[in-house]
Amino acid sequence: MKEKRVSPLDPEEEKVRHSAAHILAMAILRFWPEAQFAAGPPVEGGFYYDVELPHRISPEDFPKLEEEMRRIIAARLPFVRRVVSRKEAWELAERGRLAALGERPYPSHYKLDILKSIPPEEPISLYWTGEFVDLCAGPHVEHTGEIGAVRLTHVASAYYRGDPKNPQLQRVYGVAFRTQQELDQYCQNLEKARQRDHRKLGKELDLFEIDELVGPGLVLWKPRGAIIRQELQQFLSEELEKRGYQQVVTPHVARLELYQISGHFPYYKESQFPPIVDPETLAKLAGEDASCAQLSNWLEEGKVEGFLVKPMNCPMHIRIFASRPRSYRELPMRLAEFGTVYRWEKSGELTGLSRVRGFTQDDAHIFCMPQQVEGEIRGCLELVQKVLQTLGMSDYRVRLGLRKEGAEKYVGTRENWDKAERALRTVAQELGIPYQEEPGEAAFYGPKIDFLVRDAMGRQWQLGTVQVDYNLPERFELVYTGPDNAPHRPVMIHRAPFGSLERLVAMLLEHFGGALPLWLAPEQVRIVPVTDQELAYARERCQELLDYRIRATVEEGRETLRAKIRLAIVQKVPYVCIVGKNECARCQVSVRGYRSGDLGVMDWPVFVKRLLAERASRSCSLA
Amino acid sequence: MKEKRVSPLDPEEEKVRHSAAHILAMAILRFWPEAQFAAGPPVEGGFYYDVELPHRISPEDFPKLEEEMRRIIAARLPFVRRVVSRKEAWELAERGRLAALGERPYPSHYKLDILKSIPPEEPISLYWTGEFVDLCAGPHVEHTGEIGAVRLTHVASAYYRGDPKNPQLQRVYGVAFRTQQELDQYCQNLEKARQRDHRKLGKELDLFEIDELVGPGLVLWKPRGAIIRQELQQFLSEELEKRGYQQVVTPHVARLELYQISGHFPYYKESQFPPIVDPETLAKLAGEDASCAQLSNWLEEGKVEGFLVKPMNCPMHIRIFASRPRSYRELPMRLAEFGTVYRWEKSGELTGLSRVRGFTQDDAHIFCMPQQVEGEIRGCLELVQKVLQTLGMSDYRVRLGLRKEGAEKYVGTRENWDKAERALRTVAQELGIPYQEEPGEAAFYGPKIDFLVRDAMGRQWQLGTVQVDYNLPERFELVYTGPDNAPHRPVMIHRAPFGSLERLVAMLLEHFGGALPLWLAPEQVRIVPVTDQELAYARERCQELLDYRIRATVEEGRETLRAKIRLAIVQKVPYVCIVGKNECARCQVSVRGYRSGDLGVMDWPVFVKRLLAERASRSCSLA
Repeated sequence: MKEKRVSPLDPEEEKVRHSAAHILAMAILRFWPEAQFAAGPPVEGGFYYDVELPHRISPEDFPKLEEEMRRIIAARLPFVRRVVSRKEAWELAERGRLAALGERPYPSHYKLDILKSIPPEEPISLYWTGEFVDLCAGPHVEHTGEIGAVRLTHVASAYYRGDPKNPQLQRVYGVAFRTQQELDQYCQNLEKARQRDHRKLGKELDLFEIDELVGPGLVLWKPRGAIIRQELQQFLSEELEKRGYQQVVTPHVARLELYQISGHFPYYKESQFPPIVDPETLAKLAGEDASCAQLSNWLEEGKVEGFLVKPMNCPMHIRIFASRPRSYRELPMRLAEFGTVYRWEKSGELTGLSRVRGFTQDDAHIFCMPQQVEGEIRGCLELVQKVLQTLGMSDYRVRLGLRKEGAEKYVGTRENWDKAERALRTVAQELGIPYQEEPGEAAFYGPKIDFLVRDAMGRQWQLGTVQVDYNLPERFELVYTGPDNAPHRPVMIHRAPFGSLERLVAMLLEHFGGALPLWLAPEQVRIVPVTDQELAYARERCQELLDYRIRATVEEGRETLRAKIRLAIVQKVPYVCIVGKNECARCQVSVRGYRSGDLGVMDWPVFVKRLLAERASRSCSLA
Repeated sequence: MKEKRVSPLDPEEEKVRHSAAHILAMAILRFWPEAQFAAGPPVEGGFYYDVELPHRISPEDFPKLEEEMRRIIAARLPFVRRVVSRKEAWELAERGRLAALGERPYPSHYKLDILKSIPPEEPISLYWTGEFVDLCAGPHVEHTGEIGAVRLTHVASAYYRGDPKNPQLQRVYGVAFRTQQELDQYCQNLEKARQRDHRKLGKELDLFEIDELVGPGLVLWKPRGAIIRQELQQFLSEELEKRGYQQVVTPHVARLELYQISGHFPYYKESQFPPIVDPETLAKLAGEDASCAQLSNWLEEGKVEGFLVKPMNCPMHIRIFASRPRSYRELPMRLAEFGTVYRWEKSGELTGLSRVRGFTQDDAHIFCMPQQVEGEIRGCLELVQKVLQTLGMSDYRVRLGLRKEGAEKYVGTRENWDKAERALRTVAQELGIPYQEEPGEAAFYGPKIDFLVRDAMGRQWQLGTVQVDYNLPERFELVYTGPDNAPHRPVMIHRAPFGSLERLVAMLLEHFGGALPLWLAPEQVRIVPVTDQELAYARERCQELLDYRIRATVEEGRETLRAKIRLAIVQKVPYVCIVGKNECARCQVSVRGYRSGDLGVMDWPVFVKRLLAERASRSCSLA
């Protein structure tokens, strides 16, 4: 299944951001008129403009640039759109007049290049803002005054058109809002987000490491992080068992041909690790001294045996289905796997656990009869709901990706599509949660449902996805024997309630600010003896908890009691038990919850019972 | 950690087999005097001889070849050893006289090639048997009559010296024994083994699939097989938790540089999947149109960024250790992972689950102080013992690989080696099981212990291994801060009680003939209603078992009761519960154990209690 990036841009927000990008370009030009601009789009959370400039723009330049932008805003300059001929646009670009405040003795060469790539049937539009004119499809706000507040955030470098063969540009990022209040809120959230950044928490809580020597985007899960993963898998495995799924295990490398049949190679080639050439084939070819380019062509054409690091689990599950004749009595067959897949993300786009090169999908593929699709979709959505509810994610909505009317590109019969889309809609309505239909957003192989979840800071993440697929069963020629004793083609459903374990952990860490619910916490209880007198008692209690498989430790350090408690809080341990002379004498503990603070003295068995109940419930209400 | 092939050849057996190889060559030459022979060694279980011959030898030729071999045996021809000069041997080979019955008009060209590869300081010896003479280091039996019985088993093809660039030869395999009785026993075992072949059982019990499209040696674990894996992992995870191990999770792909530092690349290059070139680097190189050979050199020299599909977990665990400063108080640190690794085995050598290209190691690496080595080795060996005992493997022995006196190739100080070897010996003695010391069998980086296990058919498997390592901590410059506040280098211990999950499952299937103990059985109980009248009762009982997470099913087929019971036996389900009118009325079941047969009528709660106890004990005594 192919994941889609979330692009939940509100059209009004988009106009404000896009207009701010033009204003940024104007400000830059006032200081450095020789600047050459490439693309300047709105993006999730803000906007950027790519600029070629001998001066290296740094955050030290931001105040003066922002000052200039505010001046342009105060001038309430209108955005004026003009549709021009290709020739006129070309001449302006040649005279350096595009993305500029006036003519220049050299052409606007990136704009020329962009012009060339606009299809002949599309109109060419320019946007004027005061002296500034840019090649731009729009839309924009009426005038610069509609932008209430801007801020520049950072500079990165980026290849023109993302291609390392092209020159490197400076990408200046900013945010823009209609009101100052929105910007203030944004800044507050930003600080909160910085504190909750999962990369920061991952270090502080010793959860995972992204080690340059192992490779960017490849995660080493340290013991404490591996526990979180394991608990999430355990939780989902229990749900899978209840729901009639069967788990399978498949390799992380497979023959290239498998992905040629599925169509994943070479179609998604750019987002995969390059193929590995079969060593036995390579040895035979050794005499011929092929060039890399030749070999790469041979691989694509299937002339040379190769292997691919697994980018998707689906073809392997399909081969398990196809490994023997199947009867309708075996359907629906639900094959699940925590399958680790590898994708090639550009190094500049990697971010902590949320954009990685290797991640574990909580993947499953359901093989069913066409008339079972509705029931199976319902089951999938109920599972996603159960998962989100357990994880304390109550703020989510659903997006239905449907066909575009009249388009011919879709695989599968009209009747089946009608049925599947109706099923998605019916089930989404039954769920009683907000959903929106997006015609044209279906994959060519089937309609789908995505869950969009908002975390504690209001940021949106795409988690679960459910996709109907008429294509792969066709490509792999899957069949089952129906009640009529004739062969039929099954429908496939791809679904992943978490999406990726890595991204889910990133989101949970940020959502909970690192203070995970008891069942997920790597260390659940820390017992702190007041003096060495209580050490034996503390150790006995700890062992008792360990016997219940509660992750407990005894703090045996030499620091003061205050410091030890503070340390447990910094490390976000859900429960701290302080044991002094009195507690020791009465078989009690003095309990402090991470969120709830002092819970007073409890009889030991009462506390243990509470722990076990809280763990078993997988409750999200924090201790 | 590098695995070693088991070579448990008894020197006497070796002589018989090696001599039989010569007799095979003689027999072949009597039919095809033009045959050219390469190598003909004894191997585990038998012998082979590689021969180049226009005629394709097939099993149809075996009777006449065996007949001829028996004639040679009956002649009691002595094996006569002669040490000759290099020149004399060369001349004989040039005249076609080596591995021949007389001179020939063309040279014995493989023997010439072998002669060239014998180091100058080694003596050259020939063995004469009647008219036959061969270049051979020996030793052999006194005369052909010492061989009581021979049988040819199969023919395979093999590249000369295992190199696909060389010509393909016919490899004729056989077995040889001192007595006919031993051969009869062998044939009986062979038939038993054929019945118990894990590849056959894997198909019949629907456990796993090796799918040509996914790739040879790459295993798809189907639902029932995945359960066995999962149960084994669960068992070991519990033991790890009790023993203070911490589990980690690491990726299946890493930068080549990591394995260059560890020395695994290019040293073990031949047994790895070839490296993947970094796509961003590749794009930059695109203009240069490098040849594959150049690129391969650049990768080896570290001039080009690359990735390797993980052949070993150790470097990643090392990087987790090195991810922050470590104190002696954290030692011993025991990092464990069910880590799936990929190795390049030649396609001709792949066999079911026992020789594969991807397998999951129950791997762990212990980082400790030198004075902790003995205690840690003891812990490792106790764990291996616990594992073998649980799996019902009582017939095993231990092999100690120690230094060779006087050799200089070892890494680490003499004191540490002395200590580590003493520790291995002491602990092996304490275990009270047979062990043998093999000086010279240590790795250059440290001494080691291997467990050799015999299965129900007397075949030997290498399972657990424990290796001390002074090398990798050095290469990765690992340090911890000691009690003296100074930096010290830790010692590493590699250990894997199962070795590989794949090989272990292969062995268990063959050992138990597919009838796995209750806790490992994919389906534990099958309930068979006598008529539809008892179907509801059967389903209720089944649900009750499922609630206890017992893997139970109801047989709802249309066959006769007899046929249903037979099916459950064929599928090796540990318990079958037959429920008729009487059982239904009295809340009972009529129980049949797979091994124990009819267990009579039991009250339902009694049966459930028995099941739960048997599962919890992980007992190997079969139902």
